[in-house]
Amino acid sequence: MNVELSEDQVAFQETARQFSEQALAPFAAQWDREHFFPKETIQKAGELGFCGLYSPESEGGLGLSRLDASVIFEQLAMGCTTTTAMLTIHNMATWMIATWGSDEVRAKWCPSLVTGEQLASYCLTEPGAGSDAASLKTKAEKKQSGYILNGSKVFISGAGETDVLVVMARTGGSGPKGVSAFAVPANAPGISYGKKERKMGWNAQPTRMIAFDNVEIDANWRLGEEGQGFKMAMQGLDGGRINIATCSVGTAQQALNLANAYLREREQFQKPIATFQALQFKLADMATELVAARQLVRMAACKLDANHPDKSTYCAMAKRFATDVGFKVCNEALQLHGGYGYINEYPLERHVRDVRVHQILEGTNEIMRVIIARRLLADTTSLL
Amino acid sequence: MNVELSEDQVAFQETARQFSEQALAPFAAQWDREHFFPKETIQKAGELGFCGLYSPESEGGLGLSRLDASVIFEQLAMGCTTTTAMLTIHNMATWMIATWGSDEVRAKWCPSLVTGEQLASYCLTEPGAGSDAASLKTKAEKKQSGYILNGSKVFISGAGETDVLVVMARTGGSGPKGVSAFAVPANAPGISYGKKERKMGWNAQPTRMIAFDNVEIDANWRLGEEGQGFKMAMQGLDGGRINIATCSVGTAQQALNLANAYLREREQFQKPIATFQALQFKLADMATELVAARQLVRMAACKLDANHPDKSTYCAMAKRFATDVGFKVCNEALQLHGGYGYINEYPLERHVRDVRVHQILEGTNEIMRVIIARRLLADTTSLL
Amino acid sequence: MNVELSEDQVAFQETARQFSEQALAPFAAQWDREHFFPKETIQKAGELGFCGLYSPESEGGLGLSRLDASVIFEQLAMGCTTTTAMLTIHNMATWMIATWGSDEVRAKWCPSLVTGEQLASYCLTEPGAGSDAASLKTKAEKKQSGYILNGSKVFISGAGETDVLVVMARTGGSGPKGVSAFAVPANAPGISYGKKERKMGWNAQPTRMIAFDNVEIDANWRLGEEGQGFKMAMQGLDGGRINIATCSVGTAQQALNLANAYLREREQFQKPIATFQALQFKLADMATELVAARQLVRMAACKLDANHPDKSTYCAMAKRFATDVGFKVCNEALQLHGGYGYINEYPLERHVRDVRVHQILEGTNEIMRVIIARRLLADTTSLL
Amino acid sequence: MNVELSEDQVAFQETARQFSEQALAPFAAQWDREHFFPKETIQKAGELGFCGLYSPESEGGLGLSRLDASVIFEQLAMGCTTTTAMLTIHNMATWMIATWGSDEVRAKWCPSLVTGEQLASYCLTEPGAGSDAASLKTKAEKKQSGYILNGSKVFISGAGETDVLVVMARTGGSGPKGVSAFAVPANAPGISYGKKERKMGWNAQPTRMIAFDNVEIDANWRLGEEGQGFKMAMQGLDGGRINIATCSVGTAQQALNLANAYLREREQFQKPIATFQALQFKLADMATELVAARQLVRMAACKLDANHPDKSTYCAMAKRFATDVGFKVCNEALQLHGGYGYINEYPLERHVRDVRVHQILEGTNEIMRVIIARRLLADTTSLL
Repeated sequence: MNVELSEDQVAFQETARQFSEQALAPFAAQWDREHFFPKETIQKAGELGFCGLYSPESEGGLGLSRLDASVIFEQLAMGCTTTTAMLTIHNMATWMIATWGSDEVRAKWCPSLVTGEQLASYCLTEPGAGSDAASLKTKAEKKQSGYILNGSKVFISGAGETDVLVVMARTGGSGPKGVSAFAVPANAPGISYGKKERKMGWNAQPTRMIAFDNVEIDANWRLGEEGQGFKMAMQGLDGGRINIATCSVGTAQQALNLANAYLREREQFQKPIATFQALQFKLADMATELVAARQLVRMAACKLDANHPDKSTYCAMAKRFATDVGFKVCNEALQLHGGYGYINEYPLERHVRDVRVHQILEGTNEIMRVIIARRLLADTTSLL
Repeated sequence: MNVELSEDQVAFQETARQFSEQALAPFAAQWDREHFFPKETIQKAGELGFCGLYSPESEGGLGLSRLDASVIFEQLAMGCTTTTAMLTIHNMATWMIATWGSDEVRAKWCPSLVTGEQLASYCLTEPGAGSDAASLKTKAEKKQSGYILNGSKVFISGAGETDVLVVMARTGGSGPKGVSAFAVPANAPGISYGKKERKMGWNAQPTRMIAFDNVEIDANWRLGEEGQGFKMAMQGLDGGRINIATCSVGTAQQALNLANAYLREREQFQKPIATFQALQFKLADMATELVAARQLVRMAACKLDANHPDKSTYCAMAKRFATDVGFKVCNEALQLHGGYGYINEYPLERHVRDVRVHQILEGTNEIMRVIIARRLLADTTSLL
Repeated sequence: MNVELSEDQVAFQETARQFSEQALAPFAAQWDREHFFPKETIQKAGELGFCGLYSPESEGGLGLSRLDASVIFEQLAMGCTTTTAMLTIHNMATWMIATWGSDEVRAKWCPSLVTGEQLASYCLTEPGAGSDAASLKTKAEKKQSGYILNGSKVFISGAGETDVLVVMARTGGSGPKGVSAFAVPANAPGISYGKKERKMGWNAQPTRMIAFDNVEIDANWRLGEEGQGFKMAMQGLDGGRINIATCSVGTAQQALNLANAYLREREQFQKPIATFQALQFKLADMATELVAARQLVRMAACKLDANHPDKSTYCAMAKRFATDVGFKVCNEALQLHGGYGYINEYPLERHVRDVRVHQILEGTNEIMRVIIARRLLADTTSLL
Repeated sequence: MNVELSEDQVAFQETARQFSEQALAPFAAQWDREHFFPKETIQKAGELGFCGLYSPESEGGLGLSRLDASVIFEQLAMGCTTTTAMLTIHNMATWMIATWGSDEVRAKWCPSLVTGEQLASYCLTEPGAGSDAASLKTKAEKKQSGYILNGSKVFISGAGETDVLVVMARTGGSGPKGVSAFAVPANAPGISYGKKERKMGWNAQPTRMIAFDNVEIDANWRLGEEGQGFKMAMQGLDGGRINIATCSVGTAQQALNLANAYLREREQFQKPIATFQALQFKLADMATELVAARQLVRMAACKLDANHPDKSTYCAMAKRFATDVGFKVCNEALQLHGGYGYINEYPLERHVRDVRVHQILEGTNEIMRVIIARRLLADTTSLL
C-alpha cells in the first residue's frame, strides 16, 4: 500500500492545475451567470488530452488509469465544477465508443472526440426510468440493415450542443438484458431537443430532454452486442461515479481553501474570526472529511483500474460518500462566509448549487446504498 | 399548558392560507426567476393587516401577539418564502417605529406602514460589523437641532424600494451603549444605494448596500433615547428571529407536502416510491423534526409575548433550530424528487435556495449559539 | 396556546423534585453497581401517588393527565433513570388494569398497585415477536370458565419482582385482532422466570424472560373484550412512549446540568474550559435540542390527553425524537467530561448506558418511523 | 498509489486473524464481565511478536511499519478491543524505550517487553493536565546522579499490572520544553497505586491512578535528552493514535459483521429483516464510513512511516474520524439488534462500551480538532 501519487501523476496534476487556474477559474462565475457553455475551453482542454483521458491510445486517447483521471479532474473541478463535470461525462461516453464501437463508429467519432472538437452525451435516463434505469422504454426496433429508434431521454447533459449521443435503447424484452447501446449522430433526422432546463446550478452546461421519432439507426452504430447495452452503461457509470465524486472533492477543496483564507482575513470582535474555536473546529472537520473522501475516491479508482470483483461497490461507496461530503463542505464554507457566502459576488453559493446535483445524478445516493447493501447482504466477506 | 391554537388564531391562519394560495403561491416561481419585487402584493397583504401585525392598534396595527403573527407568517411562507420574509422585516421595522418613534415620526410613518402603502427597511449590518453588530461605525454626529449621518450598511432587505430606513448609528462611544436608532426617509439627500446584489435566493426582494453621506437627520427622527438604539435593535430581532424561523417552518412544510405527494405519485420498479421504506423513514424524520421546530418557534413566541426573562434565549434557540431543520427538510425534499428536484420547473430547488439565508441573517446561527451558551453558563437554572 | 405549566403542575413538579433529590439521586449509582431493585423506594413513591398517576381516582389513582405525569416523571428521572422507567411501566400496566379490568380484577389489584405495595409488569414482547408485536404466539386457549396460557415473553421489566402481569396472548386467529389481554398473578402455577439478564444499563430493575406452561387463567382476569388486547396494548404504549421519552428528557437534563457545572469548574490551559467556544457551542446545541425534545413530549402528552385523532403519531414522534436527543445529550455530556466521563465515579457513563435502551423499547425508534410514515402517507393533511 | 496490502501484510493479517479468533474472541466477554486482565494471553501474543511490532529489530522487535502494525491490530481488535488496546499502548511505550532509552535501559527492559514477558505503561495524563498535557506538574528534581520524582498520574492503562512506566515529568521550566521522559520500574520505592477504576468499558485492563512520592530515579533511566520528553510523548502518540483508531476500526468491522448476519437471520413480519430497505441503507452507510475510516487510518500510517511533515495532522485526522465512525457503527449495530443489542449475552453493548473511550484518550477528539485546525490555519497548502 502506498498513498503517494507517482511522479507522472504529480505532473498531470500540475498541468491540470495550471489549466484550471488560467482557463477555468477566471470565467466560471460568468459562465454560471450567463448560462454559457464554454465549448472552446473544452476544446482547449482537449488539446491537453483531457477529452480522452482513459480512452485507449489506439483511438487517440491518453490511455491513462481512472486514478490518473481522478487526479486531473479534481484539479479542473477546483476551477469550474460544471465544465469539469461535462468533461467527465464526455470522457465516459467517449470511452464507451472507443471501447465497444465498431471499426466504422470508432473511426468516425474517436479522432474528434478525444480532441474535444466534437462532444458526446450519455443518454440513459428517461422520464419514467430514473433510479430504475433498467426499465427504460426507448425502443430500437430492428429493421433490415438497422433499427428504428423511438422514445425520449431526460436530463441529458450537453444535449443540443453535443455531436454524438450514446443512447441506451430496448432491442429485446423487458429488463436489463433487453437493452443495447448505440452511438447516434446528434443531428440524425427525427431527433429533437427540448428547451434548455433551468437548473439550480450546473449552468455552464445545457441540460435538455431528447425525443427520438423514427430515427434510423445503422446496425454498425451499435456498441458491442445486442443485449449488452445496460451492462456497458453500468460499466461506464462505475467510472462516471468516480468522476462525479472527484468533481465534488475538487470543488469542496476549493471551498475549503476559500473558507480558510476568509477566516484568516475577516475580523470581528477585534480579531480574525480564525481565532474563534468553534469555527476552527468546523474547519478541521471539513478538512478531515474531505481528506477521507478523497482517499475513498482514489481507492475506488484503484479498484476499478485493477478490475477488482467489488469495483462497483467501491465506486458506489465513493460516489455516495464524496458527494455527500462535498455538499456538506461547500455548504459549511458558505456558512463561514456569513452574508458574503449567500451573494453571487463570492463563489460559495455557486459551489453549493453546483455540487448539489452530484448527490442525484449518475445514480442517486439512494441507489448507491441499494448497490452497497446488495453486496453486503449477498456476500458476507468483508470489504477491506 | 395547551398546544392548540385559539379560535381566533385558526381564523387568522385560514385567512393567511387563502391569501398565500391565491396571491403568493401562483407567482412565487416567476418572481424568483425575474427577480421581481411584488410591491402590490405586499400592499394587498397590508389590506388584511399583515403589514402591522404586532404593531399597536393605537398606531393602526392589529396589535396581535407574536404567536398570532407566527401562525400567520407560517401560512404565507408556504406560498412565497421571500415575500413573506420581506413582510416580516417590514413588520419588525414598523413595530420599532410604532413603539419607540416620537409623536411626529409615528404620525408620519405608521399610517402608511401598517397598510403596506409604504415599506420599511432595517439597517443594522455593516461591512465590518456583521456578527459583531455592536461595533458598528455608521456615525450620527450631533449638530444643532439634529444629527449628520455618515457611513454605510450592507445586505439591507428591500433597500432601494422601501420608504423609510430604521438605521442604527453611533451617537456616543464605542460598544452597544453608544448606538442610537433613527427613522430616516429612504430618499433623504445624501443617501445612495448600491447595485442590486445577485443572491442564491430571496430573489423576490432587492438587497442593496446603502451609503450615508452627510445625511441630515432631525432630532425627532430618533427612536427612543440616545444610546438605546442597540437595545431596541436587539428587541426587534427577538421577534425577527421568531419570524424568520417561522418562514423556515412554513417553507419546509410546503416542501414536505410536495415530497409526500411526489412519493405517492412517482413510480419506479413498478410501484410508487412511497412503498420504499428508506424513503418512508426519511419522510418520517422530516416531519418529526419539523413538528418539533414549529413547537419550539411557538414556544419562543409565547415567551416573548409573556416578556419572559429568558425570552431572548428562547428566540435564539428557535431561530437556530428551526432554520437548520427548515434547510434540512427542504434539501431532503429536493433529494426525494431526484433530478426533478434540481430543475426550476419544480419548486424544491427554490425552497432550498430561499431558506438557506435564514441560517445566516438576523444573527447567524453561530451567534445564536453564543447567545444560548452565554445564558447557560451565566445562570445555571434550567431552561424549561 | 400556552407553554407554561399550571400552578398545580408546578407543585407536582416540586414534590417530585424533592423526592428525586432525596430518595433517588443519592442511591442511583449504588443501585446500578449492585443491580439492586429498590422496591421500598418505589413504595415510598407510591405514598406520594406516583404509582397510579393517571389511573382513575375511582380506583385510587390520582387521575392526573399524561402531561401532569410527564412533568413528574421528568423530575424523577433526573434522580434515577432506571427506577423512574420501572415506575412508568408500572403506571402503564396499572392504568390498563384500572381502565379495562373486571370489577373483580380492579378490586383485587388496584388498591395495592396505586400505592406501590404491589407492582405490575407489561408482557407483550416475545422472542420472535419484537417489532412485529402483533404476531405474538403466546396462546390463551379457552377452557370452560377460563383459559390455559402457554408461551413465553422476553425482556420483561420487573419480572420476578412484580406481583401481576398484564399479558397479551392470542385467543383468536392470527394478527392483532386475535389478541386479548389478561391480568395474571405473577406467582400463578405454571409461570417460571428466566435468569436476570445482564444488561448495558437499567441495572436497578430486573429484566427476565417469563415462560407460561399451562397456566390457568380465570375468565374475569381478561381485560376488556376478547380480541381487544392488542388495541389496549397499543393504547397503553401511547402513554408508555411519552413516559419513556420523558425519562430520556429528565436524564439528559441532569447530564446537561452536570456538563454545565463541569465546564465552569474544570480548568485547562489556565482557564475554565467553559471559555472554549467549541465547548460552549456544544452545550448550546445540547440545550436547544433538549428544550425542543421536552416541548415535543409535552405536546404529545397534550394530544393524548385531548384524545386527538393523531395522538399515536405524536406519541411516536415524541418517543423517536426525545430518546434520540436524550442519548445524544448524555453521550456529549460524557465527552465533555473527558476521562472522568468514562469512569463510574462520575454518573455520566451510567446516564449513557441507561438512556440507550429507550431508543429500543416500547417500540424501537425504527417502528416509530413506520408509524409516523404510515400516517403521513395515508392522510396528507399536515400535522400541526 | 496502491491500496492493496503486500503479501507480507496479508500474511501478518492472517496470523493475527487466527490468534484473534482463537485466543481473544472466545474469552473477551468473560474478561469484560470478570474485569480480568489476560496477562498470559498478552504473553502468547508476544510470542508472535505482537508486543514489539514496530520496535527495532536491534532491540528484539519485529521492526515493522506502522501500517503493518495497523493491519495486525485491526484483526486483534475484532477479537477483543480492550486487550488489543492494551497491547497497542504497550507497543507504544516499548517503542519509546527501544528508541530513546540509554544502553542500560534498553538492555534492561527491551528483551522482556518485546516478548510480552513484562509490560509497560505510558504515564502522561495528570488530574489537572488532561487535554493540556504540557502543563503537567509531576516533578523530577535533579539530585546528584539522578532525580527525585514527585506527583501523580491518572487514567493509566495497565497500572498495577505492568512492570515499567514511561513517565513524563517536569525537569525544567513550565511548558512542553521543561518535560523529560523516564523509564521507571513499576515497583520502585515510593510508587503507589490507586484503586482499580470502575469504567464503562475496557474492563479487561486495569486503569489506576499512580502516585510518586520521592521516587529515586537513576539518570540513565531518562529517555533521550532533558527537555525532549514532551516531544517524545507526542511522537509516541502519533503512532498511538493510529493504533487506537485501528482498534475502533476492527471493533466496528466486527460489529458490522454481526449486524449483517443478524439482519439475515432475524425474521419479523414473516421475512428476514434484511429485506427492510431502511435497515439495508443503515448497513450500507455503516460499511461505507467504515471503509473510509480504515483508508484514512492506513493513509496516516503511511504518512507516519514516511515521516511526512504533516504526519501528526494525518494521525489526528485518522484518530478523530475513525474513533467517531467506530462508535457510530457499533452503536448502530446495537440498534439493529433491538433488545438483544442491549443485553450482555450478545457482544454489541460491550463493543459500544469499549470503543467509547477511544474518542477520549490519547488526546480527546476535541484536541485532535485543535491540532488539525492549527495546521490548516498556519500553512495554507492543501492536505492531499
